[in-house]
Amino acid sequence: MMAQSGATQHQDVTDFGHINLVVVWVLGILRFACRPPNGICLVVMKLLKDATTMCFSLVCRNNQKILQGMGQRQGDRFSFAGLAFSVSHGMTAVMTPFSFSLTGTDGKARTGTIRTSRGDIRTPAFMPVGTAATVKAMLPGSVRETGADILLGNTYHLMLRPTAERIDRLGGLHAFMNWDRPILTDSGGFQVMSLAGLRKLTERGVTFKSHIDGSKHELTPERSMEIQRLLGSDIVMCFDECPALPADKARIAQSMELSMRWAARSRDAFGDRPGHALFGIQQGGLEQDLRAQSAAALTEIGFDGYAVGGLAVGEGQASMFDCLDYAPDQLPIDKPRYLMGVGKPDDIVGAVARGIDMMDCVLPSRSGRTGQVFTRRGVLNIKNARHMDDPRPLDEDCTCPACRGYSRAYLHHAFRSHEIISSMLLTWHNLHYYQDLMSGMRDAIEAGTFDAWQAVFHAQREMGDIDPL
Amino acid sequence: MMAQSGATQHQDVTDFGHINLVVVWVLGILRFACRPPNGICLVVMKLLKDATTMCFSLVCRNNQKILQGMGQRQGDRFSFAGLAFSVSHGMTAVMTPFSFSLTGTDGKARTGTIRTSRGDIRTPAFMPVGTAATVKAMLPGSVRETGADILLGNTYHLMLRPTAERIDRLGGLHAFMNWDRPILTDSGGFQVMSLAGLRKLTERGVTFKSHIDGSKHELTPERSMEIQRLLGSDIVMCFDECPALPADKARIAQSMELSMRWAARSRDAFGDRPGHALFGIQQGGLEQDLRAQSAAALTEIGFDGYAVGGLAVGEGQASMFDCLDYAPDQLPIDKPRYLMGVGKPDDIVGAVARGIDMMDCVLPSRSGRTGQVFTRRGVLNIKNARHMDDPRPLDEDCTCPACRGYSRAYLHHAFRSHEIISSMLLTWHNLHYYQDLMSGMRDAIEAGTFDAWQAVFHAQREMGDIDPL
Repeated sequence: MMAQSGATQHQDVTDFGHINLVVVWVLGILRFACRPPNGICLVVMKLLKDATTMCFSLVCRNNQKILQGMGQRQGDRFSFAGLAFSVSHGMTAVMTPFSFSLTGTDGKARTGTIRTSRGDIRTPAFMPVGTAATVKAMLPGSVRETGADILLGNTYHLMLRPTAERIDRLGGLHAFMNWDRPILTDSGGFQVMSLAGLRKLTERGVTFKSHIDGSKHELTPERSMEIQRLLGSDIVMCFDECPALPADKARIAQSMELSMRWAARSRDAFGDRPGHALFGIQQGGLEQDLRAQSAAALTEIGFDGYAVGGLAVGEGQASMFDCLDYAPDQLPIDKPRYLMGVGKPDDIVGAVARGIDMMDCVLPSRSGRTGQVFTRRGVLNIKNARHMDDPRPLDEDCTCPACRGYSRAYLHHAFRSHEIISSMLLTWHNLHYYQDLMSGMRDAIEAGTFDAWQAVFHAQREMGDIDPL
Repeated sequence: MMAQSGATQHQDVTDFGHINLVVVWVLGILRFACRPPNGICLVVMKLLKDATTMCFSLVCRNNQKILQGMGQRQGDRFSFAGLAFSVSHGMTAVMTPFSFSLTGTDGKARTGTIRTSRGDIRTPAFMPVGTAATVKAMLPGSVRETGADILLGNTYHLMLRPTAERIDRLGGLHAFMNWDRPILTDSGGFQVMSLAGLRKLTERGVTFKSHIDGSKHELTPERSMEIQRLLGSDIVMCFDECPALPADKARIAQSMELSMRWAARSRDAFGDRPGHALFGIQQGGLEQDLRAQSAAALTEIGFDGYAVGGLAVGEGQASMFDCLDYAPDQLPIDKPRYLMGVGKPDDIVGAVARGIDMMDCVLPSRSGRTGQVFTRRGVLNIKNARHMDDPRPLDEDCTCPACRGYSRAYLHHAFRSHEIISSMLLTWHNLHYYQDLMSGMRDAIEAGTFDAWQAVFHAQREMGDIDPL
């Protein structure tokens, strides 16, 4: 909980003596008044400019009831009076400002912390994908247990079903999907290109038909910002266009320039939303000069973080790494750098080594449903008959529930029998593995031993899976 | 943990002073020696006949390593020496004898405790069905959290995949599916009749073709006992034949008489297995005299518990209740009575009121996957459009994760989007509701207020679901 004076000065509530006790008391009242799932989702404290008046508000999920109060400072404490229930919806929460601090570097690799009003994100960070308001086959508490600090939500899917307006009425995406930590939403542009039907691209934006019911929709920079605001996203992505690779340079340049004009419109439409961040997206394909132009254009506009977009779209790892040898360096050093849609474990390690701070990918969760398992010793497929009688866990050193509680033989049986528990356990394992990977990298970068860590990572993978019994 | 002297005398380990400390120390060593999932699954203590020597063994999952030790009594304590690792597989566990004690009655309704070597079962008990070594869409720890004391496993499914022999090699069904509490297995007969192809019934047993791959199999009383032993089932069911209703009395009598001959063969084949129970199954359709003959035949053979079989096969609730008005009374009063494959919440309440102690049904879990939700106010279907914008939980007084964390709107969205989390949350809710129901009945029977409890149960259901917003 943070108290804030004006737009820049902020101070921790614990500085104000007995306020915490008051908050506990107020929380008690509100818990009584609001039954689950209308629990409190936000407590906001604001110290007014005269430094003697404290406003606070408690925002409930779903029904948008707000308890508001005002206190006067008396020495080292505040006394509160004038509590009032309000059903207004318009109150803007005053939150911890978004910030990024680097805490260690090792070569180009970086480790640090992104601070948001919904909690810290340790970087390098891997963001599990919760496409349609769920990380498939996982409860949110389980996702958190794997070590995830932040999820990604897909604007395209959510705008179509259940719609951004409905999620807003229900208290925002966090309350809707029962995940109270940070959420990053993409802009919808990429999925429109890969999933929707009958697309039409103009300077204004994209019109398309829903892959669910064929209904017609439009996405523009302005509409994408509006949807991501309705969802309550903590980190909002600019609306951009991402051409498939390979493509000729003129096409890539044209697309990049359009994306930069859309980035400026996104910035304008986003406006001033304390506690929420807007990230720009660098484009330019595999062309170093276009990437530089794109980075310059974005930096000129000014964003809270910068994504490297337009990679992992079919160019192959070598080409992607070639691009990552220069692209992150073109972006501001003091802001988070996010590589979108990446990737396999070795893609992730190579990207971190090149200065990337954030990544997302459906791979660990999707693979969990198709029987593909990631371990320190590479990839295995649980449906292979060699696992049928194998009493050993997927990875004897892994502490996830799948490895602690089940043999390969069981997981093979569950997969072959099309049992839902197979998706649940393998997804959990894969996400756990990915988060362990990130944690290992953060520690190694902090300790200045990232080269040695990478050598072990690659050596273990080259060993391949354990021998059959 | 129980210590046992010979086949009949047994005494709680806590009677032996410092033994518990020794066990903790030994467990510590073994945890270190055996990595997951080879954790300890069984600690066996046996006081030899001289009453001064204590043997103990610690049996590990999967790899079958056994740590064995022997201690000499010195006053009120035992000192242990001669620890040794063994890889033998043949050691027979000495377990808590199976027992049943009634702790309360109210009219015909009964409450009590079934004691097994894997934990107590509070009755009336509802057993979730874990057909293919998983309660679909649930982790075993979550099933336990709903309040389940025991699961049911299906012999027919498990014998076909992954096979009973494989489960045995992997340490038994408990270790295989990561559920360390009691398991009851059916005999396979009912599923052969409902699922398998090309059945042929003879005096000897049934031959049939697998519904999975068409392979040919045979089930006899002897083979069913062998399979259930290989699975490691705590409560084994006799192999029987269950005719579909309606059927003419001659057919029902003939079938019942065959089942009674098979019950005697099951009893012989089961043999003497301390710590494991064998239940007989009453047949006789809706004919009171045939039910009485069947009960007499079973009681003559002698079982650890008695099931009422051949109901809930299409005869309707009124006919089933008519039969339950007399059938349980025909069975021994001092043994558990199990009504197989029942049922809907009001079936269960009616059965308990008529003296039934145990039930199982796929309904709460299967319904969870089809969007049917059980609450105190009856049944609702989450796919109904009325829930699309409803911020309220399924049941505001329910404490399950689905009700604590999610709105009806979210659950509707997840179901419509075919998300696995829908099956996970709705199954959890339904199983939680069923266990709450059982807990409520146990308390009411104990308190002698079961009539009043039933009146509230029916009145709440008649109110129907909460009004739309």
